[in-house]
Amino acid sequence: MTLRHLSRGQLERIRAAGGDPVGRAAAFADACRINALYMIARAGSGHVGTSFSCMDILSWLHLEVLEEGDRYFSSKGHDAPALYSVLIGTGALPFEGLHGLRRLGGLPGHPDAVETPELWTSTGSLGMGVSKARGFARANRLQGRRGRVFVLTGDGELQEGQFWESLGPTANGGFGEITAIVDHNKLQSDTFVSEVSDLGDLERKAEAFGWAAARCDGNDIQELASALDRLAAEHERPKLLVADTLKGAGVSFMEPHDLPVASTSLYGFHSGAPTPGEYERALAELEARLAERLAAIGLPAPELTSGEPPRRPPGPVRPQRLVSAYGQALVREAERDPRVVALDADLMLDTGLVPFRERFPDRFVECGIAEQDMVSQAGAMALAGLLPVCHSFACFLAARPNEQIYNNATEETKVVYVGSLAGLVPGGPGHSHQSVRDISALGAMPGMSLIEPYCERELELALRWALQEAGGPVYLRLVSVPWELGFEAPPQDALLEGRGTVVRDGEDALLVAAGPVMVSQAFAAAEALREDGIHCGVVALPWLRGIDGAWIAELAADAPILCLDNHYASGGQGDALLAALAEAAPEAAGRVRKLAVERVPRCGTNDEVLSAHRLDAASVAERVQAELGVRA
Amino acid sequence: MTLRHLSRGQLERIRAAGGDPVGRAAAFADACRINALYMIARAGSGHVGTSFSCMDILSWLHLEVLEEGDRYFSSKGHDAPALYSVLIGTGALPFEGLHGLRRLGGLPGHPDAVETPELWTSTGSLGMGVSKARGFARANRLQGRRGRVFVLTGDGELQEGQFWESLGPTANGGFGEITAIVDHNKLQSDTFVSEVSDLGDLERKAEAFGWAAARCDGNDIQELASALDRLAAEHERPKLLVADTLKGAGVSFMEPHDLPVASTSLYGFHSGAPTPGEYERALAELEARLAERLAAIGLPAPELTSGEPPRRPPGPVRPQRLVSAYGQALVREAERDPRVVALDADLMLDTGLVPFRERFPDRFVECGIAEQDMVSQAGAMALAGLLPVCHSFACFLAARPNEQIYNNATEETKVVYVGSLAGLVPGGPGHSHQSVRDISALGAMPGMSLIEPYCERELELALRWALQEAGGPVYLRLVSVPWELGFEAPPQDALLEGRGTVVRDGEDALLVAAGPVMVSQAFAAAEALREDGIHCGVVALPWLRGIDGAWIAELAADAPILCLDNHYASGGQGDALLAALAEAAPEAAGRVRKLAVERVPRCGTNDEVLSAHRLDAASVAERVQAELGVRA
Repeated sequence: MTLRHLSRGQLERIRAAGGDPVGRAAAFADACRINALYMIARAGSGHVGTSFSCMDILSWLHLEVLEEGDRYFSSKGHDAPALYSVLIGTGALPFEGLHGLRRLGGLPGHPDAVETPELWTSTGSLGMGVSKARGFARANRLQGRRGRVFVLTGDGELQEGQFWESLGPTANGGFGEITAIVDHNKLQSDTFVSEVSDLGDLERKAEAFGWAAARCDGNDIQELASALDRLAAEHERPKLLVADTLKGAGVSFMEPHDLPVASTSLYGFHSGAPTPGEYERALAELEARLAERLAAIGLPAPELTSGEPPRRPPGPVRPQRLVSAYGQALVREAERDPRVVALDADLMLDTGLVPFRERFPDRFVECGIAEQDMVSQAGAMALAGLLPVCHSFACFLAARPNEQIYNNATEETKVVYVGSLAGLVPGGPGHSHQSVRDISALGAMPGMSLIEPYCERELELALRWALQEAGGPVYLRLVSVPWELGFEAPPQDALLEGRGTVVRDGEDALLVAAGPVMVSQAFAAAEALREDGIHCGVVALPWLRGIDGAWIAELAADAPILCLDNHYASGGQGDALLAALAEAAPEAAGRVRKLAVERVPRCGTNDEVLSAHRLDAASVAERVQAELGVRA
Repeated sequence: MTLRHLSRGQLERIRAAGGDPVGRAAAFADACRINALYMIARAGSGHVGTSFSCMDILSWLHLEVLEEGDRYFSSKGHDAPALYSVLIGTGALPFEGLHGLRRLGGLPGHPDAVETPELWTSTGSLGMGVSKARGFARANRLQGRRGRVFVLTGDGELQEGQFWESLGPTANGGFGEITAIVDHNKLQSDTFVSEVSDLGDLERKAEAFGWAAARCDGNDIQELASALDRLAAEHERPKLLVADTLKGAGVSFMEPHDLPVASTSLYGFHSGAPTPGEYERALAELEARLAERLAAIGLPAPELTSGEPPRRPPGPVRPQRLVSAYGQALVREAERDPRVVALDADLMLDTGLVPFRERFPDRFVECGIAEQDMVSQAGAMALAGLLPVCHSFACFLAARPNEQIYNNATEETKVVYVGSLAGLVPGGPGHSHQSVRDISALGAMPGMSLIEPYCERELELALRWALQEAGGPVYLRLVSVPWELGFEAPPQDALLEGRGTVVRDGEDALLVAAGPVMVSQAFAAAEALREDGIHCGVVALPWLRGIDGAWIAELAADAPILCLDNHYASGGQGDALLAALAEAAPEAAGRVRKLAVERVPRCGTNDEVLSAHRLDAASVAERVQAELGVRA
C-alpha cells in the first residue's frame, strides 16, 4: 500500500487562493481530510469518522473565524487527527508532524498540551470542555485580556453530567465570549446516540440553561458561516451551535447512510485504521472532490506526495485476548446466576459485552457516556438483590465515578467493576486513555478486592471468584490489547486468595507482576538473564491488594523481589506488596524494589512506550543486574 | 437546659386521629419537628434548617402516600434528623433512636443503610438520587416486582452534574414509577442558591429533559397533596415536583424572611445545634402551633417529655484552628502574588474563605456544588498563567472531580487543592463526610505533593511552599475541627521537603503522624508510656508522599516505627513511609507498623470514633506495648 498526502506547498496554495472564502475552506477541508487519512493509515490507528465529521467546522474556524487572542480547543479529543491536519495546514504545527501520529515524540493520539504546546489544553476525557472554556474566559477577564473561546464537543459526550453542570454557571456569569459547537454526527463509539442514550432536543435544553442556541448543517460551510454570524450578534449569553454532521463526512462509504438506526447496528469507522482497500477508495473519492473544489476556486488539480507506510512487526501468534475471553466468561456466569446484570458506558465492543447483550438483552443496561449515573444505578440494584457488573475503560471507571464507587462500597453490597484498556499499552491513544492510576484511585475502597489476571484462564477464574466467592466489591483490571505471553501458562484450577502462579523458577531474584504485559516482560527478562547465568523466578500475581506476603517471602527466600507495576509507582501493586511483606515477613520488606511508571505515559507504539518507561524486558533485565550488582 | 420531646404514645395518638388526613399530617410534621429539634440539640450538631424545610413533605409521604413495595429515600442526606423523626413517628425506626443521633451505635449524621437497615440507601454525597432511584426501579422490573420510587433532593444539590446526567436516561427508559421531589428551600450551605449558582427555571429544564414537572408550596400539605395527585396521573414520564419550601420552616426566626438576598448574607441555621435560647424559643413556637393543629383534628394539647442533654466535655483551650488560620494565610499569600485565585464549591464558611472573598472579591470564584466544573475551570486558569486554589471538603474534592484533577496534573501546570474536614473527626456527620480515602485517591497524581500540617504555623509554611516553591500541583489536607495538641509546637522556620518536626524525643519507638489529631494522639500515647518506662519519639510529618526515608530511618535508629494514619490502611501515609524506607533505608522498612482506619468510619462523638477505630492515645499506647512485647 502506498500512502499519499498533500505537501506543505499544496496546502499553502489553497490557503493563498483568492475569491470565495467558503469555497476555499471547503477545498482546504478536503485537503485536510486526505492528510488526516494519511496520518491514521500511517499510524495504524486513530478516529477517522469523528475527524471527518468536524473537518469543515475546524477548517472554517481556523481559516476565517479565529483572531489574535481567541482560543479554540476540542473537548472530545477523538478528532485529534483533524485538528493536527488543520493546524499543519495553517502552518501552526510543524509539517513533519504529519508522519508522526501516535509515535513517540510525534503527535499524541489525543490532544496533549505538554507534548504539543501549540494546543491550549489536553483532552480525551469527556465533558470537560465548557468548564475549561470558562476557565480561559475568566482568566482573560482577570488578566485584562480580550479574546473569544471556541470549544468543540462531541454529541455522545453530552451524556456526561459535567457538560450540564458547566452550562448554568457559564450562563449565569454572562460568558458571551464562549461559543460551544456540538459536532452532532449522531454516532458515538458503538452506535447511534439516539439508541445509546438519546439527547432529546438539544437546543431547547441549552436555552433552558440560559444559552443562546442555533442549529445548522455542519458539513455545509455556507450554512455554518451564517449560523456563526447570527450567533455572534448575541453578546450576553454564551452560545451553543448544534452542527448536524455526518460521521465520516466526505467519504460516502464511511457515512452512515445505509446503517439502520437500531441498537444492534455498529458503525464501522469509529476507530482503527482503514484497510488498504478502504484507504484507496476513500482517497480516490477525496482526491476527486478536492479537484472539483479547487477548480471552483480557480486552482489546478491537487498533486499528492507518495510514501510508504512504516513496516509493522507481525502480530502476536497465540495472544491472550482478555476482553473477548471476558465477554464469553460473563455469559457463562450469567447463565449460572440470574442475579448478574451488565452495565456499560458506551464501550460495548471494547469491553467485550456484545455476546452478553445478545444472550441477555433484558439484563444488559446501556448507560451511555455517563459513568456516575451507571455506578449509582448499579449500587441501588445491588441493594435490591442483583449482582451488577459495571464496565468502562479503566481510566474512566476508576476516576469519573470515584465517589459513587465509594458510596456503593460503604453500603457493603457487591458490585463488580471491570476496567479494560488498563496500563501503558496500547500506547497510541495517549495518556488520557493509558490507565496507570486506577489501582491507587480505587485502592482504598473498603472491602474491595482488586485483581488483574495475566491470561484467559486466570481471568475466567477471577470472574468466577468475583461473582461467586468475593464478599464485597471487586475491581477487575484488564489489559485490552491481545498479548503474547512468550510461554505456556501453567494449568490453573482455582484462584487462591492473595497468591498467584509461579510461571518460572529461579533463586537469584523474584520478579512479581500482574497482567499479560508485565508478566511477559518479566518472563522475557528472566530468559535473557539466564544467558548471563542469572536465574530469576517469575510470579504472576493477580492480587493488587490483599497479597499473601508470607507466600511471596517464602518464594523469594533471600533474593531481591522486583515488582513490575503497569501503573504509577505510588499506590500500585508494588506498594501493596511492600505492605503485605512488612506485616507478614518484615525481613523481606527491605528487599522489595518497585519498577513502575515514573512519569505521565508517553504516546507511541507499544514497544516504544514500554521502552520509554523502562518497563520492557531489556530494561527489566538491566535493573535486575543493577540490583544484583552485576554490570551495574 | 432541659430538652423536650414527644413520646411514642403522643406520636401514636396523632397517627391514630381520624378525620382530615391533611390536618393530621400537618400536626404530625410539627410533632416531628419538635423531636428533630430534640435530636439535634441533644447531639450538639445536625442540620435543622433543611430538616424543617422538608418535614411536611416527609410526613405526607410516609403517612398517606407510600404503599407496600414503594421506596422512599433522601438524596440530600442533610435531612437525616427529619427522616429519623418521621420514621420514629411511624414506628418504622425504634423510638430509642431519638436519643442517639450522631452517637456510636445510634443514628448516623447522614443516612446509612448499614447502620440503619431500615433505610434503603446511604446518602450524603450529593447528586446521586435519581440514578439510585432508577437502579431500584430497574431492579423491580427485572425481578418482576411492583413499587414506586420517591426520592427527595435538595436544590443546591442540583448544581451537581450527575443530577442532569441521570435525567435523560430516566426519561428515555420511561421510568414513570419514579417521582423526584426537590426540597426547594432556596438556601444552600452558605447562602441563597440564586447567589451561589442560580438554577434558572427548574420546571422548564426538567421538561426539556423529558420529565413531567409540577410546582407547589411544599410547606402547604394540601397543595403538596394536590400536586402529587396531579403528577400521579402521568404514567409514562418520570415526575419532578419542585416543592417551594422555607429553610427552617415552622420556626419563624429560622426562616429566612429577613435575610436579604445578597451573596454576603449567610444563613444562620444550616448546621449546628441551636443555642439554649434559640432552642427554647423554637420549641415554644412549635409547641403552640402543634397545639393548634391538634385542636383542629380534635386532639388535646401535646404533653412533652423532659430530659437532660448529655454533659459535654469542655472544649479545647488552645486549639489549633487550621481552617481559620488557612483563611488568613491565603489572604496574605494573595497579597504577595496577584496570580492567586480562590475557587469554592459552596463551602466558603467551612473552608475559611470569607476573608479572602471580602479582600479579593474579583479573585474569588463561587462555583456552587459543582466540583468537576470547578476543577476543570481551574485547570484552564492555570494554563492561562493564574495560580488557582480549589476548595471543598476532602471527601468530595478528592473523589468527585478525581478525573478532572488528573487531567490538570497531566498538563504539568500548578493547581492547589485544599481539602478540609479531613480524617475521622468530627465524627458526627458520618462516613460520607469523614474523609479517610483522599490520600489514596489522589496519591498517584503525577507531580503532585500531598501535605497535611499539624499546627497553624506548619500550615502557613505549607501554603507558602505550595504557592511559591512547589513545581507541580499540591493537595493540602486539613483537619477542620479545632484541636488541642497537648504540647507546645516547636518553632518552625520552613517546610523541609520530605521531613517533619520532632515534637518529642525517645529511643524505644518512633511514632510518625500527620495532622493535629494523630500527632496529638501520638504525643499523648508517648506521655502515657513514659510512666511505664517506655520512651517514644514523636515526629509530626506533613508529607503524605515524597517522604525522606533516610531521615526517618536515622531518627528511628533500631526502634520500631509506628505510623498513625487518619486514613484507611491502604494508600495512606504509612504506605508512603514504607515505600520511602524500602528505597532509602531498606533495613528499616521491616520495622514499620501501620496504625490506620480498618473499616468504614463509625459515626459518634470525636472520642467515641477515635476509640472505636483504635486510634485514640490509649489504643496507640497499647499497640506500642504490643509491638515492644510489653504486656502484649
